[in-house]
Amino acid sequence: MAAPYKTFSAADLAALRNICGETRVIARNEIGDDFCHDELSGTRSRPDCLVKAMSTAEVSAVMKYAFAHNIPVTPRGSGTGLVGGSVAIYGGIMLDLSGMNRFLELDEENMTLTLEPGVLLMEVGKFVEERGLFYPPDPGEKTATIGGNISTNAGGMRAVKYGVTRDYVRALEVVLPNGEIMELGGQVAKNSSGYSLKDLIAGSEGTLAIVTRATLRLLPLPKHKISLLVPFADLPAAIKAVPQVIRASAVPTAVEFMEREVILAAEQFLGRKFPDNSADAYLLLTFDGASKTEVALAWEEAADICLKCGALDVFISATQERNEAIWSARGAFLEAIKNSTTEMDECDVVVPRRNVAEFVMYSHDLQQKHQIRIRSFGHAGDGNLHIYILRDELEEKVWESKLAAVFDDLYQKASELGGKVSGEHGIGFAKRPYLAESLSPAEKTLMHGIKQVFDPLNILNPGKVVC
Amino acid sequence: MAAPYKTFSAADLAALRNICGETRVIARNEIGDDFCHDELSGTRSRPDCLVKAMSTAEVSAVMKYAFAHNIPVTPRGSGTGLVGGSVAIYGGIMLDLSGMNRFLELDEENMTLTLEPGVLLMEVGKFVEERGLFYPPDPGEKTATIGGNISTNAGGMRAVKYGVTRDYVRALEVVLPNGEIMELGGQVAKNSSGYSLKDLIAGSEGTLAIVTRATLRLLPLPKHKISLLVPFADLPAAIKAVPQVIRASAVPTAVEFMEREVILAAEQFLGRKFPDNSADAYLLLTFDGASKTEVALAWEEAADICLKCGALDVFISATQERNEAIWSARGAFLEAIKNSTTEMDECDVVVPRRNVAEFVMYSHDLQQKHQIRIRSFGHAGDGNLHIYILRDELEEKVWESKLAAVFDDLYQKASELGGKVSGEHGIGFAKRPYLAESLSPAEKTLMHGIKQVFDPLNILNPGKVVC
Repeated sequence: MAAPYKTFSAADLAALRNICGETRVIARNEIGDDFCHDELSGTRSRPDCLVKAMSTAEVSAVMKYAFAHNIPVTPRGSGTGLVGGSVAIYGGIMLDLSGMNRFLELDEENMTLTLEPGVLLMEVGKFVEERGLFYPPDPGEKTATIGGNISTNAGGMRAVKYGVTRDYVRALEVVLPNGEIMELGGQVAKNSSGYSLKDLIAGSEGTLAIVTRATLRLLPLPKHKISLLVPFADLPAAIKAVPQVIRASAVPTAVEFMEREVILAAEQFLGRKFPDNSADAYLLLTFDGASKTEVALAWEEAADICLKCGALDVFISATQERNEAIWSARGAFLEAIKNSTTEMDECDVVVPRRNVAEFVMYSHDLQQKHQIRIRSFGHAGDGNLHIYILRDELEEKVWESKLAAVFDDLYQKASELGGKVSGEHGIGFAKRPYLAESLSPAEKTLMHGIKQVFDPLNILNPGKVVC
Repeated sequence: MAAPYKTFSAADLAALRNICGETRVIARNEIGDDFCHDELSGTRSRPDCLVKAMSTAEVSAVMKYAFAHNIPVTPRGSGTGLVGGSVAIYGGIMLDLSGMNRFLELDEENMTLTLEPGVLLMEVGKFVEERGLFYPPDPGEKTATIGGNISTNAGGMRAVKYGVTRDYVRALEVVLPNGEIMELGGQVAKNSSGYSLKDLIAGSEGTLAIVTRATLRLLPLPKHKISLLVPFADLPAAIKAVPQVIRASAVPTAVEFMEREVILAAEQFLGRKFPDNSADAYLLLTFDGASKTEVALAWEEAADICLKCGALDVFISATQERNEAIWSARGAFLEAIKNSTTEMDECDVVVPRRNVAEFVMYSHDLQQKHQIRIRSFGHAGDGNLHIYILRDELEEKVWESKLAAVFDDLYQKASELGGKVSGEHGIGFAKRPYLAESLSPAEKTLMHGIKQVFDPLNILNPGKVVC
C-alpha cells in the first residue's frame, strides 16, 4: 500500500507556518536528532518538517493540508516507543502533540478525567492521586504521553487486576486523515450505539486517526497497598506459583517476575541496593484495597500459597520507603539493561499465563544457541514479557543477523504457545513482518480494508502496523 | 445500502438441507411464529428458511452458500432482543445458533472459559459459580445467549464495578459473510498486535461476522456480598446520592434505582411482597468482596452516605433468602411491566451518571405531555436507563404516533444531556433512525465503510445498525 508522496517543498513549509506560526514549524535541517528515532533507535528517519501542534484546530488544519497535498504525517508524543511507531519512515510532516498537554476537566460525579494527548502518564498519576482518585493503567515508562498509551493500548503492571488502557478510555476526540474532527464515546459507562470506533482507534498506533482529546475513567484511589517480594530457587518455580496466586480470593494488582541478573544490573545502574539479591528468581506481588484488613487478608493468602509452592522467603514491604526501593528498581530495569550494553532490541510478546516459564526458559536457551546476551523481565500475571537482546561488542552485520535469528525463534515459539506479537508496545515499524506472519490472510485483508476506509491516501503514519 | 437479494427458491432449501440435514432446515411455512419477531414484537418478518446450525463448519458452509447466491442471513440466539436485531427483515435465511451450546474448555490457570455462542447467560453463571469462579457481566435477561450478549456488548447490573461484556471477551472465533473462519484474540490478557477486530465485532450486532466460539475472562468468585435497599422520599433525592456512593472508598457492584409503581407491578406479577414498598423511590446497592470485613466496611460507608443524603432508612439484606426476594423482583421488572399492558416499546439510553435524575424526571413529565403511561427502572450507577412506553388501550394509529413522539423527545433529551442511543440493548432495526440522527456524517461514513469491508454484499443481518 506504499503510496508515492509529494516531495516536500518550501511552499509546503510556508503553508504550514501559515497555519501554526513561524516558531512551531521547523525545517528538516533544524530538526533535532531526537525526532529521527524513538527510544530504541533501530529505526531512523528524518522528517521533512516538524510541526508542534497546540490545538485540535491546528491538527485538523495540518491534516487538511497534508490530505490535499498528499504528504505523509507521523504523529508523535514523547517518543518513548520501542518499535519505531513514531518515526517518520516516509519523511513528510512529523506532528508533535506533546505541547497539547492540558488537563481539561475532572468530573468527580462521573469519575472521569478529560485531557489533551500530550499529558505525560506520570502527570496523570500525580493529578488524580492528589485528589484521592486513581487511573489504573501503569506502564513502566512514566514519561510516555497518554496519547501514546492510548495509541498502543498500553497495559503495564496493574493489568492483572485492572485491565489495559482501552478499558479506561470513555471518549476520544480524533482528527481523521482528511482533517475532519470526530467525537467518539462519551461520559457514559456503557455504550451499544453502533460500531465502537473508539475501541478500534485505541491500539491502532496513530494509523487511523490522531487522538486530540481523551476522557478517561477513574476509580477511587485504593487507600492501602502492600508489596511482597518473594524469592524462589529458580524461575520455573516462581512462575509455577502465579496461577495459584491469581486463582485465590483476591486478584493481585500486579505480579511481576524478575531474575537476579536484571536486579544486579538495576542495582549498578541506580547505585542502590535492592532489598534482596540472593535468589535466582523473584516474584513481586502487589495488593491494593480500600482497607488494611482487606489487603492483609489478600497478601497473607498469597504468601501462604507462595510458601507452599516452594518460595524461599516472603519479604513484606508495607512502608512507603521500602516500596519505593523495590518499585524504583523495577522501574529502572529497562534503562539498566540498556545501560549495560551498546545497543539492544526487544521482543514484547504476550503468551497465556501458564506458558510464561516455558517461554522465558526458552529465551535463556537462545543465549547459548545464538551466542548472544538476552535479558528479560515482565508481567508474570498477564503473560506479557519483555525480552531484550543485547548487542554488546558485536559487529554491525553479525548483530543484525543474530538479532533476526533470535527474533525468528522468539516469535515462532510465542506463536506455538498461543501468544501474540505484542502485549503492549505495539507493532509500529519494527514488528510488522512478525505481525504479518501471525495474521491469517482474512484478518490481514480486513485490517487493510479498515485502514483504507479511514485513510484512503495512506498519509497517516504510513509504513506502520499493517501497511 | 439495501441490496436486491435473490428470491429464495426450493433449490436453495435443498442445498441448505444438503449442508445441515433434513431436520434442521425448516421451510418458510413451517417456521414457528416465535422466529418472526423478538421479545418486543414491534418488528415482524418471516424468514424464508430457518437453519439450526450445530457447528462452525455448518455456519461456514451456510455463509459460503449465501454469499455465492446473494441470500441475506440473520443470525439468532434465543431471540430475547428488544430492538429487532434478530428479525429477518429481508427474509432469507435465519441462522439459529442456540443449538451450538457446549462448554468447550475451562482453563483455571488462565482463568478463561471457552464456549459456543448458544450457551445461555444463566448457564454460564451456574457453571462458573459452581467452580468458585465468576463471570461478572449480568444483564437482566438470563435466558439470552452469550453470543447475543457479545453481539450487543450487553452491560447489566454489575457494570458499575466490573465493566461490560466487551471487557470480558478474550478471544472470538467468527465466520465472515463469505464463509471464512477467523480466530481473533487469544488466551492472553493483553494484546497490542494490530487493529482489535475482536473489540470491533463485539457490539456489532451480528452485522460484521457471526460469533461461533468465545473465550471469556473469569474472576475469582467474590465470597461475600450484601445488598442494601435504600428508600428515599423521591427519585431526585435517590439519584443525588449515587455519585457520592460511587466516589467512596469501595466501588459498589451494582447501583439500581426503582420507583414504587414498578415495585407494585412486580409484586403483582410475582404474587409476592417486596421487602418494602412505602417509599416513592429506592436505590438498590450491592457490594461484593473476598471477605466479610471488606464488604462490611464498604456497605457501612455507603449506608452513612445515603442517610446523610436524606435516605429514609437502610434495609440490609445479607441473607440468601432476602437477597433473592429483592433481586427476583428486580429481575421481574421487565416482565411485570410488559404484563401490565397490551404492548410496549423501550428506550435504552445511557446518560452521564449525574444526569440520570433529570432524564428520568423528564420521562415522567412526558406522561402528561403525551397522555401515555411510561415506566422506568435502570442502572443508576452507570447511567443506563430502561424506559418503557406502554400502549394500554390505545388504538394502533394513535399508539404509533404517540410512541414516535415520545421517542423523539426522549432521544433528543438524551442527546442534550450527553447521552447515547443505546446503553446495552443495541440498535438493531428499531433504533436505526435515532442512531443515524446521533452520529456525525464522518462517523456514519466510517461505519458504512467498515460494514462494506466485512460484508461487501450486505448479506449479513442486513437492515440493522448502520445499513
